[in-house]
Amino acid sequence: MNISTETLIEGIKSGDKRLIGKAITLVESKKAEHRERAEILLKEIMPFTGKSIRIGITGVPGAGKSTFIENFGRLAIKKGKKVAVLAIDPSSTLNKGSILGDKTRMEELAKEDSAFIRPSPSSGFLGGVANTTFETMLICEAAGYDYILIETVGVGQSEVLVSDITDVFLFLKIIGGGDELQGIKRGIMEMVDLIFINKVDEANSNKAKSTKQELLRALFFMPEKEKGWKTPVLLGSALNNQGLEEVFEKIQDFIALKIKNNSFSRIREQQAEKRFEYWVQQLILQKTRQESAMENSYERHKKNASELKSNPSTEAKLFVEKLFKRG
Amino acid sequence: MNISTETLIEGIKSGDKRLIGKAITLVESKKAEHRERAEILLKEIMPFTGKSIRIGITGVPGAGKSTFIENFGRLAIKKGKKVAVLAIDPSSTLNKGSILGDKTRMEELAKEDSAFIRPSPSSGFLGGVANTTFETMLICEAAGYDYILIETVGVGQSEVLVSDITDVFLFLKIIGGGDELQGIKRGIMEMVDLIFINKVDEANSNKAKSTKQELLRALFFMPEKEKGWKTPVLLGSALNNQGLEEVFEKIQDFIALKIKNNSFSRIREQQAEKRFEYWVQQLILQKTRQESAMENSYERHKKNASELKSNPSTEAKLFVEKLFKRG
Repeated sequence: MNISTETLIEGIKSGDKRLIGKAITLVESKKAEHRERAEILLKEIMPFTGKSIRIGITGVPGAGKSTFIENFGRLAIKKGKKVAVLAIDPSSTLNKGSILGDKTRMEELAKEDSAFIRPSPSSGFLGGVANTTFETMLICEAAGYDYILIETVGVGQSEVLVSDITDVFLFLKIIGGGDELQGIKRGIMEMVDLIFINKVDEANSNKAKSTKQELLRALFFMPEKEKGWKTPVLLGSALNNQGLEEVFEKIQDFIALKIKNNSFSRIREQQAEKRFEYWVQQLILQKTRQESAMENSYERHKKNASELKSNPSTEAKLFVEKLFKRG
Repeated sequence: MNISTETLIEGIKSGDKRLIGKAITLVESKKAEHRERAEILLKEIMPFTGKSIRIGITGVPGAGKSTFIENFGRLAIKKGKKVAVLAIDPSSTLNKGSILGDKTRMEELAKEDSAFIRPSPSSGFLGGVANTTFETMLICEAAGYDYILIETVGVGQSEVLVSDITDVFLFLKIIGGGDELQGIKRGIMEMVDLIFINKVDEANSNKAKSTKQELLRALFFMPEKEKGWKTPVLLGSALNNQGLEEVFEKIQDFIALKIKNNSFSRIREQQAEKRFEYWVQQLILQKTRQESAMENSYERHKKNASELKSNPSTEAKLFVEKLFKRG
């Protein structure tokens, strides 16, 4: 990358979309030289981060996430907000067409001066949001975006990871009871702060209402995630701009409650701590496995454990002893 | 401990309860010398382990877990099974009276030749079942116990940990809808394989049925944990030996299904792998923190991350680099 780190930092601060994009590419890079520059860049912009509302959005394919993000984003822009969209659909990396597809679907939003859309690659040794979505979010915050919308789909651990870096977690539901509901990912009901039943129209409004009742019954079994907050189930149609205003208001209410409960900053601090601990473990394992002797030893001990030949903690102990004796 | 490791091993194989107890005490010990002997013992008994059905049992205090275990255990014994009970109630360590209390409550079961009851301390640097409950279970298996019942209460991570070392996870529920249900711990509904609504009698049987309906509705939202298994909700009274036969049968059905699905052994292998990975991380952190310079460094970097002064992954990288450069 032939643009200096200083230029990138200035570009972020002045909100230059091309330079913001380049800065994100730098942060996403795996090259050692780029990693070093990325660390400097992140350190410099850190004081300008943290001022956005971070929103995670999930839902099965077909729930209308792109349309929701497009029209919700435009609504927020109408209210004077700057909106960044980070799409971490894992299919993006598998299929270039999918990225373009997303972009096309959000083309009205993409035209807005106050919007920035970035498909985030989910490649890398950690995969998913663990990799650089958090850092990309910091860059967008430093560039003055007020709302960061992070899209995820129900694959692997991505919801948990997105939930761990956002302030509000929004679940887009399509109408229907029965087997469709079985498609809800394990744990999703416990993470959500707000549910939006999408694609509601006159023809299906009764079905929508019964879906809402079912969801409320299921939510009834979930302990409060935030003191005093009952997860609302809203109805609407993102395509027809129905119900989005209410979503916007509920998000404000939720953030206001978190601030009142002193949990807004506290949870962000806990998220940062958790993220630190997670990275320490990942980096130790990565360093360990860079040494091929240790990598082989790790795999051998793990195999002994999984084949039930030996007690797993004994195998772990043998490996860790080797690790600390080497060199 | 002045009993030789060989004597302990022979004692386990011959089913000598006093020596089984001593072997468990050895495995629970934190002393380096004991740890070494424990490793030898576990290695020797490993070929004789794995043949039991491992059952995790959870429920809020007052759900009647001790009574359930006592009478369910006696039922299994009547059917010719040997039953070991590991109670990991965290209060056990806080209050000696509680251990005696548990023992007293299970006194009928304790009298049985084919029963072995062991309150498991939850002390130690890891706490909970992560410490030695798994190893205690291996000892009981080598001693020929067919059913291992592991009791837990809804505190901290104990359910997850018990779920990670058992084949069947049983949830004891007391009657009642409304706010009581809010007491269900986050995630519990997704871990259970079988629910038993306890303390049902004529007076409350309608309430029991509506509790069952509510639970079924909530379960409806949970994806299948085991292919082809719909978590049953059974009604009964452990005190009056009602419904226990059905629980026994459902457990057999569930195990048979897991074997048919080829998931019984596979899940045990995955559990062992997970346990290995968990211990590697824990032991690395433990080793690291034994060096006070590294401990201080760890805390300082974590604080920087949590105070949002710096990007958590940057702080993690700085710490891990120090860790691998030292010495």
